[in-house]
Amino acid sequence: MTPRGTDVEQVELANTAFYECLERGDFDELSALWLDDEISCVHPGWPVLSGRGEVLRSYALIMAHTDYIQFFLTDVKVSVMGDTALVTCTENILSGGPADEESGELGPLVGQLVVATNAFRRTPDGWRLWAHHGSPVLADADGDDDD
Amino acid sequence: MTPRGTDVEQVELANTAFYECLERGDFDELSALWLDDEISCVHPGWPVLSGRGEVLRSYALIMAHTDYIQFFLTDVKVSVMGDTALVTCTENILSGGPADEESGELGPLVGQLVVATNAFRRTPDGWRLWAHHGSPVLADADGDDDD
Repeated sequence: MTPRGTDVEQVELANTAFYECLERGDFDELSALWLDDEISCVHPGWPVLSGRGEVLRSYALIMAHTDYIQFFLTDVKVSVMGDTALVTCTENILSGGPADEESGELGPLVGQLVVATNAFRRTPDGWRLWAHHGSPVLADADGDDDD
Repeated sequence: MTPRGTDVEQVELANTAFYECLERGDFDELSALWLDDEISCVHPGWPVLSGRGEVLRSYALIMAHTDYIQFFLTDVKVSVMGDTALVTCTENILSGGPADEESGELGPLVGQLVVATNAFRRTPDGWRLWAHHGSPVLADADGDDDD
């Protein structure tokens, strides 16, 4: 099950798999992507969640309340040091409201801009999530002009 | 310069030193706390900043616009795996506006609630910052009732 390729390529695949799980609402696969212990997670605007119980319960809750969600990742940067990898990325999120009961069509699409720092650990079964921290981008506040 | 104690104690000291630098506005010491390469930083509501240039420039900017800032850290949790440590904590921030020119007294104090995930790497000179991600706590949105 361990994907081939360089460390950076493997980490990118693990990071992509994380978001694909969320898009599909696949709770079991999502659970398998996280380490067994000492994990933490911050959803945008939320306090810190610690441990598998709190973290996985939050995803079950989010999945139960999400009808449609798609992540377009941009600015993906991977840094690998030893058996740890950090990924930063911008999550361009498109999510849909509940479907109209008569027509069956999705409700209006809503866009959201989130930045994330994801920490992965190398394990015998591949790279697993140690921490996820997502936060809303409230404004282009950095005064940055080099991209 | 390497502090004694367990890994967790050392990491807690490094994490505390990070916030004390910010309180004192000590840019040189802050710069020395970060790794030389591959660092990233997200300030609350900001996009991702990558590399020492972008990250340190942002702190210079923040320090230039901050007259008074104090961090009361709560919920500090440390997870060490190999040569990497992750710290999650709540930053209860108290910052003061510009001093009144006549009286010299500080302006009104403003409180802010931020949660952070800080990644540290073990180096010959002690634990150094690899990544900082801070985000505003917008609401008690997790429906969590176990503390």
